[in-house]
Amino acid sequence: VDCGEGTQERMQQYKVRWFRINHIFISHLHGDHYYGLIGLLTTYNLLRRAHPLTIYGPALLKEIIELQLKASATRLNYQFNFVETQDDGLNKIFEDDFVEIHTFPLHHKIPTTGFLFRQKPGERRLLIEKLEGRDIERVHYKLLKQGTDVNDKGGNLIKAMDVTAPAHPARIYAFCSDTIYSEKILPYIQGADLLYHEATYLHDSINRAEETKHSTALQAAQIAEKANVKKLLIGHFSSRYSNLSMLLHEARSIFPETSLAVEGETFNV
Amino acid sequence: VDCGEGTQERMQQYKVRWFRINHIFISHLHGDHYYGLIGLLTTYNLLRRAHPLTIYGPALLKEIIELQLKASATRLNYQFNFVETQDDGLNKIFEDDFVEIHTFPLHHKIPTTGFLFRQKPGERRLLIEKLEGRDIERVHYKLLKQGTDVNDKGGNLIKAMDVTAPAHPARIYAFCSDTIYSEKILPYIQGADLLYHEATYLHDSINRAEETKHSTALQAAQIAEKANVKKLLIGHFSSRYSNLSMLLHEARSIFPETSLAVEGETFNV
Repeated sequence: VDCGEGTQERMQQYKVRWFRINHIFISHLHGDHYYGLIGLLTTYNLLRRAHPLTIYGPALLKEIIELQLKASATRLNYQFNFVETQDDGLNKIFEDDFVEIHTFPLHHKIPTTGFLFRQKPGERRLLIEKLEGRDIERVHYKLLKQGTDVNDKGGNLIKAMDVTAPAHPARIYAFCSDTIYSEKILPYIQGADLLYHEATYLHDSINRAEETKHSTALQAAQIAEKANVKKLLIGHFSSRYSNLSMLLHEARSIFPETSLAVEGETFNV
Repeated sequence: VDCGEGTQERMQQYKVRWFRINHIFISHLHGDHYYGLIGLLTTYNLLRRAHPLTIYGPALLKEIIELQLKASATRLNYQFNFVETQDDGLNKIFEDDFVEIHTFPLHHKIPTTGFLFRQKPGERRLLIEKLEGRDIERVHYKLLKQGTDVNDKGGNLIKAMDVTAPAHPARIYAFCSDTIYSEKILPYIQGADLLYHEATYLHDSINRAEETKHSTALQAAQIAEKANVKKLLIGHFSSRYSNLSMLLHEARSIFPETSLAVEGETFNV
């Protein structure tokens, strides 16, 4: 999600597996959120990428990419798809068997969307210890995981509820890039397992935050609390803060389960 | 000259003085030569640059920059000039009291120019030791430096040739970014004090070099020798070479005054 200048270099530095990435989401067209994209696309070309790549972002991004490819007389050797995002409500932009992805409007100087990654409910989990000694046809495991009772090979009924545990709850990750404090986003991010929310300033710079349509660490924490999320990640810190602990401290005063989105760190949802 | 992705970061790392840069020259529109430009332009905006900035490059570059500024609703707070380059011969693109700058055509996959920086002949240098004890009006120093004889305050003739040494010779720097080996460039770069010439491959990959319209280290050295330049800088090495000493060795076998254009190094003309 988002792709500032130097993304390629960081991917190399942190040993990101380049070909695990098949979808890239761009929240808006301020440079710190997309200037690294064109380099990534053309490096994939040099690396002879074979799999399709899909970019989700504002319509103008497609024009920018196409103009830059034209200028270098580049024809990508992989399939490049572009999905245009709109900042007019909750819009589903992707769905497969495991996940649904939506955009929702943020409130910034130019059209900006957040992204909501919603895992689909999974299957019930087999309790291996309860199945020991049972002679069950392979295809019946699938039915048990779906909650359907089956018979073992001896004809004995096996109740799904006895030998399976509920599915892990479907996880939700909400990403709010640049935005002014806005409670309008609460319905979209309600109950997320992890919320990334920008926190450009400390709250003593609330005027500057409002002027530039950014949020303070305190406000990010207020959003997290009101949306009843489980964990908050704050990021997009102004370069005026060489020490980030004040930002963390401020957010934690409202919402203790806050972490700093620091380069190179990994957070589980 | 040229501005790949991450230029800003390198400028910071090497403590380049940001506001000493007033002119940026882009040789062609392959990404490794300009993807860092838009970020630099917009960072200058954040830093409240006041002085004009002039970019020299292919016409499409202006379109790309304007589209990206439009996408972020950015109005630059400094004067931004664009000088369109042509790859059809020697073209003067800049001149002031000290230097003339020309483009000349290179031979690559897309329109590409080299850049020739020619210092203008300077003034003769005053020989302080020959002027000791002489009582000369301040304005007469300027005339002496221009080679004009003057009188001192006592009415004695002072011959410019007696009290000045010739000007330092006007220096020439020639920059040849991406190009296949071509002797057509020789007249443009003849006698340069310093020639930068790409050397993407070792000569055992001459086929690959021709295919991609790049040069080998050997060929760069041959150009340097035929153009009778004083020093050669080679660069733009393929990422296949983790050790650059072979490239240096190959070039030096033809042209001993060769150095590697390595990140962070400074070379005097």
